[in-house]
Amino acid sequence: MGITADFSHFISGHDRAALPAEVRHQAVRCLVNLAGCTLGGARHEAAQTAWTALRPFMGPPQATLLGRAERTDALHAALINGIASHVLDFDDTHLATLVHPSGPVVAALLALAQHLPISGADLVDAVAVGIEVECRIALGICPAHYDRGWHVTGTVGGLGAAAAAARAMRLDPQRTAWALGTAATQACGLREMFGTMCKSLHPGRAAQAGLMAALAAAAGFTSSLRAIEAPRGFAEVLGEQPDYPAMLAGLGQDWVVMENSFKPYACGLVIHPVIDACLALRAEAVDDPAAIAAVTLDVHPLVLELTGKAEPADGLEGKFSVHHSAAATLNDGYGSARQYSDEAVDDPRNVALRRKVALRPDPAMRKDEARVTVTLAGGGQASRHVEHALGSLQRPMGDADLDAKFLDLAADVLAPGHARRALQACWDAPGLARAADVAEALAAPSQQAR
Amino acid sequence: MGITADFSHFISGHDRAALPAEVRHQAVRCLVNLAGCTLGGARHEAAQTAWTALRPFMGPPQATLLGRAERTDALHAALINGIASHVLDFDDTHLATLVHPSGPVVAALLALAQHLPISGADLVDAVAVGIEVECRIALGICPAHYDRGWHVTGTVGGLGAAAAAARAMRLDPQRTAWALGTAATQACGLREMFGTMCKSLHPGRAAQAGLMAALAAAAGFTSSLRAIEAPRGFAEVLGEQPDYPAMLAGLGQDWVVMENSFKPYACGLVIHPVIDACLALRAEAVDDPAAIAAVTLDVHPLVLELTGKAEPADGLEGKFSVHHSAAATLNDGYGSARQYSDEAVDDPRNVALRRKVALRPDPAMRKDEARVTVTLAGGGQASRHVEHALGSLQRPMGDADLDAKFLDLAADVLAPGHARRALQACWDAPGLARAADVAEALAAPSQQAR
Repeated sequence: MGITADFSHFISGHDRAALPAEVRHQAVRCLVNLAGCTLGGARHEAAQTAWTALRPFMGPPQATLLGRAERTDALHAALINGIASHVLDFDDTHLATLVHPSGPVVAALLALAQHLPISGADLVDAVAVGIEVECRIALGICPAHYDRGWHVTGTVGGLGAAAAAARAMRLDPQRTAWALGTAATQACGLREMFGTMCKSLHPGRAAQAGLMAALAAAAGFTSSLRAIEAPRGFAEVLGEQPDYPAMLAGLGQDWVVMENSFKPYACGLVIHPVIDACLALRAEAVDDPAAIAAVTLDVHPLVLELTGKAEPADGLEGKFSVHHSAAATLNDGYGSARQYSDEAVDDPRNVALRRKVALRPDPAMRKDEARVTVTLAGGGQASRHVEHALGSLQRPMGDADLDAKFLDLAADVLAPGHARRALQACWDAPGLARAADVAEALAAPSQQAR
Repeated sequence: MGITADFSHFISGHDRAALPAEVRHQAVRCLVNLAGCTLGGARHEAAQTAWTALRPFMGPPQATLLGRAERTDALHAALINGIASHVLDFDDTHLATLVHPSGPVVAALLALAQHLPISGADLVDAVAVGIEVECRIALGICPAHYDRGWHVTGTVGGLGAAAAAARAMRLDPQRTAWALGTAATQACGLREMFGTMCKSLHPGRAAQAGLMAALAAAAGFTSSLRAIEAPRGFAEVLGEQPDYPAMLAGLGQDWVVMENSFKPYACGLVIHPVIDACLALRAEAVDDPAAIAAVTLDVHPLVLELTGKAEPADGLEGKFSVHHSAAATLNDGYGSARQYSDEAVDDPRNVALRRKVALRPDPAMRKDEARVTVTLAGGGQASRHVEHALGSLQRPMGDADLDAKFLDLAADVLAPGHARRALQACWDAPGLARAADVAEALAAPSQQAR
């Protein structure tokens, strides 16, 4: 029929009961991971500044801000939660396109679920459908789209959020197409913004715009029915010679959401095998990190190119410093997002150790492979080789890994028992009568006792 | 320094007192025209549907919806008023770029003026500065940007609104650059949406996004300081080989806002000289339109290409039918937006007369030139030649023309005395202590007596 029409019929007509069990489980994993990342980012200054700036304009307290006691209207909740989901650079990644797919989709759906009655099963189904459509549209325009300078999470994110919200609202195919169109014509996000608060604004705006698009379509707000593929539509204007067959191949059969990956560490992906090796060394071979004389990293050349910042100035730069990452992990073990605070980067123990780190780029290494060799002051050596980093498609994060990551990220905003209950609510989502229970479990208690 | 920095210093540092009187007057004319167009579009179904869909999420009643009794938060007021400003295709046009510049700028500023104390003089100054920046950025990327499929009013509109709001809020150069960047990374709007409600969404979203960008920047939300010119910034990603010198040439000296034009008739621009000629014929030569046997139009070939729809199906198609436009004008004289209602297009008198209209395309004619010849049933002939259409740069709408247009558009939503007071408030803006008085004068009375 047409790309937009095919997607619209898939979104509107797909049979929830026929969703394969592993796809449903993957959608829940996306929810768990994204909720944890949002809790971890809830108090970040980007989310905080947006909240402060926009608070005077917000509507009724319909929806939860994850990790906060305050509520706001569903559209602003989608925005702020979307910002918070991405500020730690810790959310999920569809590696083939570099889309971070869950932020726009989950932020839109959790807010919607507090405005309309949506079951947990429908929430999980809509997460799968939204991410599926989002990543497939990206497959048709990447890498040229990303290379041109588009932050693809911002652009296709709104389409994913619209698809998810339209699905959850059970819109008919025409209104679903309008929702996709109204999201497509709001697609935005420039890579120039990397390193500023606007980077996280992109998934936030995508969540808000996609949700708004579905709500508007439901009310009869019209859009093009060929928004994705028309000559002056999304893919032609924001892409270069789009590959439409790649968008649709196997739609509803081969689930692209299965190729979504989760990060164990809050830094650039190419650093991850180095951290795996450092964790093993610290656990098994290094009793006293102060006794380390030298650290040698055998890595893919991209590690030097992307993360070769030997003297990072602050936490944000630390995320792009393999030197800091190796030093902090050898000193303190698994450090999650806290390892990339300004304080951690300034810690004299980390400064001293990162100056002993040397890189040996090796084109024969894969991007998710690394060997780390530690030389101790006494002359002894220890080495660990990682074939595939944790979080890669070959060695995905297990459910228990996701639990640990969630609880670690939640620790700043929720008490331990509360965090465990919130985590359980995410895992239990498919069986909940009210998807809103998931969002409510992720709220921080108000300062007044309840 | 850099394009973004140069614009930021211009916006932040320009001397309001040095604004040339004719530029200030032109800014007031933009305000008058845009306010009238917004009143005329206030009850259009695109604005109405957006209002209905988003009402559950709106914030406190801070700001006026022009031509309505309801109020809403400033961000949603900017959105809804921006939509209403464009739905009649009757707003202003910067002919060199096809930007409709006032909608995003004025909708953002009127809403802001009801949130923060802004004087009328500052409002008018910010209108001039916002339109200036908006059109200049467009000059650097058009026509390639428009040809690629971007609705330039949506894309540069947000930058214009951000510039205007930053100016009115007196942000420093750094925060002004952040505002421009936060607007630039939200730039969007596809030409594929023409013919759907999403076309008018574009200036609405631009107004809302630009206002949000300035409010966020004021609160410390960071963005790139090179958002316009960076390799992965606005102009390179959304344009093709941008012409940066064209953006800045004569900035602060040669005011591009002076080249903004106002439409006397609610249809495609190339039809306008035909309407001028028909108005003259009706006033001076045709006593009984029913006695017309034939109408011959000598026009530029583009008139046939763009507006050659001999049998329009509805009001929207009527805007692209020179046949209907000539017939309706000969029948009823000046008809404003009502001449493009479904009823007017179906009126048997207009149907009969438009079937007597013949076009003679002539490459020697200018686009704003036309000759209309009427042959009467008795054999007599009358002809009128228009050198330059009313509303062209060579023959701009006078202030009295703008008054008549405003009062005509206001008639559907405001009582005559109220409309005249609202019009006067726009003209008086430069001397008002509170710019909010302009917005409040443009509200419809509530249904309860006050």
